[in-house]
Amino acid sequence: MRKESDFLGELTLPSDALYGIHSLRAQENFPNQKPFQLEWFKAMGKVKLACYRTYARFKEAAGEKYQQQKLPITFFDSSIINALEEAAFEIAQGDYYKQFIVPAVQGGAGTSVNMNINEIISNVALMKLGCKPGDYQKVDPFEHANVFQSTNDTVPTALKVATMVMLDQLEENINAHRNQVEKLERECRDVLRHGFTQMQKAVPSTYDKLFSSYNNALSRDWWRVSKCAERIKEVNLGGGATGTGLSIPRFFIMHVVNELQVITGLPVTRGENLSDTTSNLDSYVEVHATLKAHAVNLEKMVNDLRLLASDLSATSHLEIPQRQVGSSIMPGKINPVIPEFVISSVHKVYANDVLISNLCGQGCLELNAYLPVIGDALLESIQLLIDANATLLSNLMKGLEVISMDDGIYDNPAISTALIPYIGYHQSTSIAKLMKKEGLSIFEANKKLKLIKDEALQELMKPESLKRQGYSLNDIVNFS
Amino acid sequence: MRKESDFLGELTLPSDALYGIHSLRAQENFPNQKPFQLEWFKAMGKVKLACYRTYARFKEAAGEKYQQQKLPITFFDSSIINALEEAAFEIAQGDYYKQFIVPAVQGGAGTSVNMNINEIISNVALMKLGCKPGDYQKVDPFEHANVFQSTNDTVPTALKVATMVMLDQLEENINAHRNQVEKLERECRDVLRHGFTQMQKAVPSTYDKLFSSYNNALSRDWWRVSKCAERIKEVNLGGGATGTGLSIPRFFIMHVVNELQVITGLPVTRGENLSDTTSNLDSYVEVHATLKAHAVNLEKMVNDLRLLASDLSATSHLEIPQRQVGSSIMPGKINPVIPEFVISSVHKVYANDVLISNLCGQGCLELNAYLPVIGDALLESIQLLIDANATLLSNLMKGLEVISMDDGIYDNPAISTALIPYIGYHQSTSIAKLMKKEGLSIFEANKKLKLIKDEALQELMKPESLKRQGYSLNDIVNFS
Amino acid sequence: MRKESDFLGELTLPSDALYGIHSLRAQENFPNQKPFQLEWFKAMGKVKLACYRTYARFKEAAGEKYQQQKLPITFFDSSIINALEEAAFEIAQGDYYKQFIVPAVQGGAGTSVNMNINEIISNVALMKLGCKPGDYQKVDPFEHANVFQSTNDTVPTALKVATMVMLDQLEENINAHRNQVEKLERECRDVLRHGFTQMQKAVPSTYDKLFSSYNNALSRDWWRVSKCAERIKEVNLGGGATGTGLSIPRFFIMHVVNELQVITGLPVTRGENLSDTTSNLDSYVEVHATLKAHAVNLEKMVNDLRLLASDLSATSHLEIPQRQVGSSIMPGKINPVIPEFVISSVHKVYANDVLISNLCGQGCLELNAYLPVIGDALLESIQLLIDANATLLSNLMKGLEVISMDDGIYDNPAISTALIPYIGYHQSTSIAKLMKKEGLSIFEANKKLKLIKDEALQELMKPESLKRQGYSLNDIVNFS
Amino acid sequence: MRKESDFLGELTLPSDALYGIHSLRAQENFPNQKPFQLEWFKAMGKVKLACYRTYARFKEAAGEKYQQQKLPITFFDSSIINALEEAAFEIAQGDYYKQFIVPAVQGGAGTSVNMNINEIISNVALMKLGCKPGDYQKVDPFEHANVFQSTNDTVPTALKVATMVMLDQLEENINAHRNQVEKLERECRDVLRHGFTQMQKAVPSTYDKLFSSYNNALSRDWWRVSKCAERIKEVNLGGGATGTGLSIPRFFIMHVVNELQVITGLPVTRGENLSDTTSNLDSYVEVHATLKAHAVNLEKMVNDLRLLASDLSATSHLEIPQRQVGSSIMPGKINPVIPEFVISSVHKVYANDVLISNLCGQGCLELNAYLPVIGDALLESIQLLIDANATLLSNLMKGLEVISMDDGIYDNPAISTALIPYIGYHQSTSIAKLMKKEGLSIFEANKKLKLIKDEALQELMKPESLKRQGYSLNDIVNFS
Repeated sequence: MRKESDFLGELTLPSDALYGIHSLRAQENFPNQKPFQLEWFKAMGKVKLACYRTYARFKEAAGEKYQQQKLPITFFDSSIINALEEAAFEIAQGDYYKQFIVPAVQGGAGTSVNMNINEIISNVALMKLGCKPGDYQKVDPFEHANVFQSTNDTVPTALKVATMVMLDQLEENINAHRNQVEKLERECRDVLRHGFTQMQKAVPSTYDKLFSSYNNALSRDWWRVSKCAERIKEVNLGGGATGTGLSIPRFFIMHVVNELQVITGLPVTRGENLSDTTSNLDSYVEVHATLKAHAVNLEKMVNDLRLLASDLSATSHLEIPQRQVGSSIMPGKINPVIPEFVISSVHKVYANDVLISNLCGQGCLELNAYLPVIGDALLESIQLLIDANATLLSNLMKGLEVISMDDGIYDNPAISTALIPYIGYHQSTSIAKLMKKEGLSIFEANKKLKLIKDEALQELMKPESLKRQGYSLNDIVNFS
Repeated sequence: MRKESDFLGELTLPSDALYGIHSLRAQENFPNQKPFQLEWFKAMGKVKLACYRTYARFKEAAGEKYQQQKLPITFFDSSIINALEEAAFEIAQGDYYKQFIVPAVQGGAGTSVNMNINEIISNVALMKLGCKPGDYQKVDPFEHANVFQSTNDTVPTALKVATMVMLDQLEENINAHRNQVEKLERECRDVLRHGFTQMQKAVPSTYDKLFSSYNNALSRDWWRVSKCAERIKEVNLGGGATGTGLSIPRFFIMHVVNELQVITGLPVTRGENLSDTTSNLDSYVEVHATLKAHAVNLEKMVNDLRLLASDLSATSHLEIPQRQVGSSIMPGKINPVIPEFVISSVHKVYANDVLISNLCGQGCLELNAYLPVIGDALLESIQLLIDANATLLSNLMKGLEVISMDDGIYDNPAISTALIPYIGYHQSTSIAKLMKKEGLSIFEANKKLKLIKDEALQELMKPESLKRQGYSLNDIVNFS
Repeated sequence: MRKESDFLGELTLPSDALYGIHSLRAQENFPNQKPFQLEWFKAMGKVKLACYRTYARFKEAAGEKYQQQKLPITFFDSSIINALEEAAFEIAQGDYYKQFIVPAVQGGAGTSVNMNINEIISNVALMKLGCKPGDYQKVDPFEHANVFQSTNDTVPTALKVATMVMLDQLEENINAHRNQVEKLERECRDVLRHGFTQMQKAVPSTYDKLFSSYNNALSRDWWRVSKCAERIKEVNLGGGATGTGLSIPRFFIMHVVNELQVITGLPVTRGENLSDTTSNLDSYVEVHATLKAHAVNLEKMVNDLRLLASDLSATSHLEIPQRQVGSSIMPGKINPVIPEFVISSVHKVYANDVLISNLCGQGCLELNAYLPVIGDALLESIQLLIDANATLLSNLMKGLEVISMDDGIYDNPAISTALIPYIGYHQSTSIAKLMKKEGLSIFEANKKLKLIKDEALQELMKPESLKRQGYSLNDIVNFS
Repeated sequence: MRKESDFLGELTLPSDALYGIHSLRAQENFPNQKPFQLEWFKAMGKVKLACYRTYARFKEAAGEKYQQQKLPITFFDSSIINALEEAAFEIAQGDYYKQFIVPAVQGGAGTSVNMNINEIISNVALMKLGCKPGDYQKVDPFEHANVFQSTNDTVPTALKVATMVMLDQLEENINAHRNQVEKLERECRDVLRHGFTQMQKAVPSTYDKLFSSYNNALSRDWWRVSKCAERIKEVNLGGGATGTGLSIPRFFIMHVVNELQVITGLPVTRGENLSDTTSNLDSYVEVHATLKAHAVNLEKMVNDLRLLASDLSATSHLEIPQRQVGSSIMPGKINPVIPEFVISSVHKVYANDVLISNLCGQGCLELNAYLPVIGDALLESIQLLIDANATLLSNLMKGLEVISMDDGIYDNPAISTALIPYIGYHQSTSIAKLMKKEGLSIFEANKKLKLIKDEALQELMKPESLKRQGYSLNDIVNFS
């Protein structure tokens, strides 16, 4: 065991703990069990790495400038800088995640996050330098690990990095999913089906029209998600506690974001107004809401497919792949578990959206204290959507079978809509009513009512006529 | 009194009623009191006008093409077309709004909206033609007023038109508001104040930094709102019941949206995939969520101002204009009623956001039945935000007074942050602790601890040093 | 025109306006169009009446006690008290509602509500006394109309009164609705149907079981709503601005709530801790959430009925009454407009629930400034639910027809569940699989597999066996 | 490695895995990382134990009844029953939790939960009987582990048990917290402070009034939470797949809930209408909403305390205990991390509330497929509130210090309210205005205006007069 102290007193830690007293305090204050997002943890490593590399460049630049003179500030030894860089690099790979003991739900705008990382980095660096964890005279969590940084610039910057990384994955997942939907669209080109509005039979449609509407929706989603990075690419790294940059060298402010860009390969840029970037979180609201638009599309889509494939459906329109035994008591039962999983997931996204906008509106003056829980919800939502797209693709869309429906189209009273241009709404209604009342097809009904010539009706009822978008006078001039 | 009938039977109406039986049925089925949005009502008139004008052009084109031949369909008489156009034009001006008796909350995806409009148009047209309301042989709500249209294309198209009109107003309001904030930013350039993070004193800042962060947020909001039109400019007019265009002439489909563009002066375009445009409502989710990002900025801003101006505040930092007597019992009390109004309004926007995404996800196959209540919430939110910006501008920002704060800055322990580059975090902490413990200024504390040279401290504490973004080694080389 | 002034200056009003300058200020500050709830307006009249009557009693008691002595405070003339009482009584009837010009969304914790009422009362009283509106020397909005009152006790007390009145109506509506559902339950006792879990056919059930589950849910709702009054019966009338009762006579505090009880016939009681009753709004959260539980039941119920009656359904299980023409373009189409109206309504309730809890949590020290918009949302929700129950009863449940389904029950593989006690899950699965694969009935499948004796199967498949809750060994001993 | 198969084919598992193929399928279908709630897992063990014990009693009862006769069904061997009971008991202790591989977010109404438990139980029982995991001939997940059960009765019943267990803990935590608040109330009896309404100074109040309002709120919360058990005590265990009890012995239905009562010590009872209990989830809405009312109280309370203790406050009214270093860059900064943690937590509860009511309304006919994610959110919320109360008690309320404020009370213009009974609202306003304008105390202002006698003013301004609830004429007769 070793001891560490802060202004509140002393605490005992395992001697090999890489976290320190500030992490322990947080754990005690925030009795929450949800683990902090791994991707955010890794992004903290990237941000720290950018800071140390910029520090090294600053040291070098200062050395060149003040070659003969005494430097106005004292720089750390290169061995320390190297050790910090290595430690940060390892965190960026996901190492030492178990030493991160601060939970997802916490107070303090991320101070505990930053300090837990600072403590891990210091201790890892110490070990690399042959010292023991806790030997902070040599490498200190504040003076070294946190050099030129603040919680309020590193933690939000890392959140933006993590968000971009995950948005990239989401983009890929949406597109892979969309590709499969497009394949379905091609495969069932011109397969007629009943259209339904308000769960009632409407004018006829085709399966490819249904899939094309999903394809379009997913295309919009893809485009949307790809635009999200733009909304959050401005970071406040270098801004210090409140974006004013107080106590940060201008050299550092000017170079650190470029360094981060190089490390992450992401289009991060320095915010034009760091006070704004530090205090206003509206961009998260916008990004998450964009995700919600995607979630809404997923819900609509799986609701449709579940309904068409359900036992409630008139004739099974669709068959979704069987994925697991559906009941522990009813033999042979198979359930639409993938749609249900997707709906559960998107409703968690909707709930996160409420959390995010509520708390983003609660910023106060220079800062929003709720960044940790906002960020956690944002990353959780992205992951939920990645998972939803992934399982939809593999476990539903890939095995989906469209059952061709060759009958019933002409028994649906709504098909009389096609006659309106020739006989008007009220006469078409007479045909529809008779069809409904006596269960007749449109041909049989017209035989009784004789409202349109037989050949004209035949022509209008051809699948190609029904599928065509609109009619031209030429189409009908022959049978008028 | 006159009588009208439908397939359910007969109802009696006042003889001069311009609505008809279908409106009455809706009123009976939907016992809601909230009035339908006026702007949407007017937009229905514009959409109808576009349809009648396109009808007239179609008739003309057909006449030219089939000069000698019998036309394959029968067109209405020009006098009827003219009467329909006039009626639609008047609705577009807001006339006959009292005849619109269908409430905001309703079932039926907008059928009652469309029918109430169709009935008004038919009856107005009838009167223009010298007939009585209800004399539908001559001008019929279905066959004439609704020609080539469906609820499912006219009502959503009108919603998009109304939304664009109101978004334009919102844009103007945001910008006027933003201009005033920018003026405040200029007026208090370099006025020092305490920065606050988590409601605790942080490093010093200036008033212009605070207002600049509002200005930036409002600039983003302005840009956002201006981009919203793009998200909803695709309309499905001409798509008929489900976007397939069944029973609609191709000529009409091709020309009606251009006509609407001319009438409204808005960049409406025909959706590329009308099945998608008809069935998917994700764009409303995206647009409303964008509004929510603006709402979040407003909430943050008025929360700040209310707090700084409140009686709770240490010294009154800000004075917000007095707008009305604040209490019926406590003499002389003035309350921050404008911030409270804004917060009430934005929370209604947040609530609408929940409604909108919940219901947009409940689309089913070819249609979403909840369009009326979704659209109502969307337009309500835009109006709430227009009102919030308007009253903020006139009743708060215009009279806001910043009270210069010339003392206390050097008594705030967080100011020791400025010393970190020179003496490190731990020595700065010693100064901060002493300041806190004994209530000393940073100068007094340093006199006791002697951690930095006096001249250096003087230099670092100059307002211009504190306001500068970051430092350069040159700044400090002299006193190191 | 007449002029009125306050500390901000002078405004001009129509000479016969019954509102005054404070109402006008509010209108200018709060550019919102939503009308203030009528029931709350009326309740303000009741509360004011209780105050004036208590004032009169206090005057009388004081007169008796200090018969010979000079009274320590000056009471108003009886004619004024009478005029105030009459004015308040008329407001309690809904008179002068058009003079109430303060909108639903407003800042100021209700001060504008109280002042608009005070101004109407003063002016009405003035007219009764033969004076002109605005002649406040004689009857003053503060000194007379508001005597012994504060916004912070009258407005919330009136909200509670209005809520109770409307909850009573809701209770009646729920119960009437429930009665009809119970009737349906009785009418289709033992009519077999497929049970469905996750939209897949499950073990058989009966229609009365479905309706009984609705009946139970509505019974719980009825009970819940009847319990809501208890949650809000504690009022803070007499507490003054912050519940401390400063400047209010103890006599008044002790008697005014009883007076209100007599006037309203409602079980209002004086809060035990008026600071708590004034500052904490958790009871509204609880009451609205209870309403949300009812809303959830309505949504589930109409979703079921819409689905069973939809064109998507295998065989039409249910027929819901036709209420209006369903399409302006598709002849003969009828839509489930009542379920859609109900779903739209309940989603507005869900949205209000978000608003209410968000703002109830934003109380600050002695008061919650958002009471007006919270109360508006609460009363709106109650009305939405009253309307939903009313139209469900009249326009859906009353004409609902259950279509007996006599076939298909034995073709549903899930019916093999009934065999598990005798042949186990795995053998039952074999039967189920064969039924599914070859489209056989359970009898045919068993003929092939011979897993259970024919007579035993016949016995188990009798409707009465299927309907019975569980089996006893006696039931099956004969065929084992 | 061992192999298992189901109707979809074969999968390979580690030979010592206690889960089986159905769990693996679920893991593959539901790529979610959130762990299933431990307390629910344990409750599944309790429910299973109740089922096996009832099975044993049924076997015994049947044996007694049919002593000589052949039993109509075959019962398992006692050794199997014992092994099942032991396995279930161990799960009830939390053993084998790592073998539970089904995530929190899942499709399928809980089938995967039940099957994962059934597989663990079977495999544990097998090992107890000297067999290997996977040797299901002897002990089968369906036939043995799931005997007389369905997912749809065991999983919801276990959720109710887990909820009750956790509600008990919450109740204790609320009460412990409330006790400390009551202690604070006693300790600062009669310590005067400014009252604040709408963040502006209002009539004076005392600290004990503030704490008493928290105490009352927490008392209501305690009572509420204690009532929640009643809302969910009805379980559907024994109802089978849809509450009809098909394939379940009546003996089992009649006894199993009592057995569960004995095992858990909780007041669980059998639902009166098992179809209702199975299909309607309104009780969860009600219970969670009740929790939300508590959350709202916590938010209000910590918002107050944070504000009073903040650096923004005029004079520090309160001091909240320092819990950890507040900044990695600003030396000496301490933040209100406990209030922030609590606010983060309650907003997660609000978000869960949206999820829960949205999905509870999406039940369909016999079942609600979203029970797993609903239950997860409910238990998560309870834990969040337990944690919030716990840390509030230990880390905030216990060290809270009230700073006596002896001045400023008489400088606050709102104090003139106390004079209204004697000099009226308008004269009191004159005093208030003068106080504000010239920064005078009420005594100084009255010296100038001479509106009330000096001795009377002295009397009225005595702390005991200000603290008293209301006044009586006797109080003032002397100085009138």
